[in-house]
Amino acid sequence: MGTHSTRQRIVEYEQRMNDKSEVGIDLAVGIDIGGTSVKGGLVDREGTVSNRFTLKTADFDNPRSLVDELADRIFSNSDRSELLGIGIGAPNGNFYRGSIEHPPNLAWKGVTPFASWMAEATGVPCLLTNDANAAALGEMLFGAAKGMSDFLFITLGTGLGSGIVVGGELVYGHDGTAGEIGHVIVEPEGRPCGCGRRGCLEQYASATGFVLTYRELNPDAAPDITSREVSERAQAREQAALEAFEQTARILGLTLANSVAYTQPEAIFLFGGLAAAGDLLFEPVRTHFEANLLNIYQGKTVILPSGLSESDAAILGAASLIWQNES
Amino acid sequence: MGTHSTRQRIVEYEQRMNDKSEVGIDLAVGIDIGGTSVKGGLVDREGTVSNRFTLKTADFDNPRSLVDELADRIFSNSDRSELLGIGIGAPNGNFYRGSIEHPPNLAWKGVTPFASWMAEATGVPCLLTNDANAAALGEMLFGAAKGMSDFLFITLGTGLGSGIVVGGELVYGHDGTAGEIGHVIVEPEGRPCGCGRRGCLEQYASATGFVLTYRELNPDAAPDITSREVSERAQAREQAALEAFEQTARILGLTLANSVAYTQPEAIFLFGGLAAAGDLLFEPVRTHFEANLLNIYQGKTVILPSGLSESDAAILGAASLIWQNES
Repeated sequence: MGTHSTRQRIVEYEQRMNDKSEVGIDLAVGIDIGGTSVKGGLVDREGTVSNRFTLKTADFDNPRSLVDELADRIFSNSDRSELLGIGIGAPNGNFYRGSIEHPPNLAWKGVTPFASWMAEATGVPCLLTNDANAAALGEMLFGAAKGMSDFLFITLGTGLGSGIVVGGELVYGHDGTAGEIGHVIVEPEGRPCGCGRRGCLEQYASATGFVLTYRELNPDAAPDITSREVSERAQAREQAALEAFEQTARILGLTLANSVAYTQPEAIFLFGGLAAAGDLLFEPVRTHFEANLLNIYQGKTVILPSGLSESDAAILGAASLIWQNES
Repeated sequence: MGTHSTRQRIVEYEQRMNDKSEVGIDLAVGIDIGGTSVKGGLVDREGTVSNRFTLKTADFDNPRSLVDELADRIFSNSDRSELLGIGIGAPNGNFYRGSIEHPPNLAWKGVTPFASWMAEATGVPCLLTNDANAAALGEMLFGAAKGMSDFLFITLGTGLGSGIVVGGELVYGHDGTAGEIGHVIVEPEGRPCGCGRRGCLEQYASATGFVLTYRELNPDAAPDITSREVSERAQAREQAALEAFEQTARILGLTLANSVAYTQPEAIFLFGGLAAAGDLLFEPVRTHFEANLLNIYQGKTVILPSGLSESDAAILGAASLIWQNES
């Protein structure tokens, strides 16, 4: 589980958290770094978010300037002695190293030790992970997965992110980046993916992939049509839009049924733009899921909408890193 | 994690184990129930197997008669006060319930509470799991996965079994039967599988599936040709035999690369009849595996032969259930 310096970093983090826990501090900072915006806020033990702020990701051409701005924002709202820790969700976040590694959607590339820089800049302990992993923790602590110890969390947005919880713990894997179900190859000669390979689930079952499918079925559609607009057409019983849901559900339902063969979750939560389509998506996904499940798994895993609100999920999830790792 | 009575069973088990641990007992019984034979033996903390015995599975037309015979065998070799526990690996074994559920290859069907019956018949605590799960524990405690906390264990025999270890613990899942990678559907309209569906990995990458592929490539081959005989032909550079390895490795390598996206293991161990082919299998599997890995996973997971001997693996694995769950 990582290198000596990684362990050292986590041990130090735990010691500092311990000191703070003992004096009853009960606020964590949650920060979500996305391709478009960086969102932050303070989160208490009940999951109440306060002092929200939003920054434009494009305003920061290097990670140091973002760290400095975030430190300013955090201390304009709170005293460091009030803060138990800072939790960060980021694309390609590595939990063990606290680093953002080769993010596909940010201006800065390479490997950035973002958690260490934040901790140095603020004097507050900091943990960082993949954004979908953070959201999975948020679902467990504050959403519909409360009390569940085995579940999958899937975000169907621009990309397809996932977090896997086993035995009440997020699965980080050997090197800190487990849980990339969006990059399971479902069509070996299929659509090109941003990762450089072909046929990843993300290219079919994210909101983006869904729109691609719709535009194949309806070549007259505007190139910039959104998944929400396609949902509205399906609501109006447009045949191509309904067929886009059916084709998307066929691939997603089969892949989720295959996923059960790994960790046998109690529930699979779907979140994000495409999940907002509700029954239009959930009904055919559940049908294809059940039809493809191994007999011993049938009837034992439910597919559910996330219990988190779209607006708070990212901040709650990031802050959950702190509550979940409190010793 | 299962029902109240399940928890009760495990709590009672742990109490009884505790009592025994305290007086320094250091022998466990390992029993492997297979379609052809039932193997058992005594295993100490160093993984030394003694007092081996083998029974013919077909000699027992009901599970009660097998339990009685096993109890006799165990006490012909040891006193119950010497035994810390009995670990059992069985097809379709459910860890939480200690039951064998709808086994495809045994004469008795339905759900048998085998672990409870063994504990009653012997007065010794008993734990039971899927045979491949047990073997994964054996690999971790006594084989090549010593010291690893995240790995996959795959058996390529008559079927394709798997055990998944995350954070040093076997993944049992919500209902006790996680880890069935052999039943990931890799060809939706593919070969019929014993589970009633089509296109499961097991139908392509088990020893049985490999022979099916070979017989498609060489229709003149004897219907009862074994995977070992096909390996010998590949060793002699027979084209159809080499192509059978290539086709098998293509499907297995891709599916293992997809598997990394779930739990990001440090290693994947291949065991069983087909793995005995050595480099004929491992080389093309590694090639297809690396070619299909997501960039962030490349070079971080190794595919290795099991470190367990074919003859002791099943008994060691079953006994490992006791050593791993010792409190």
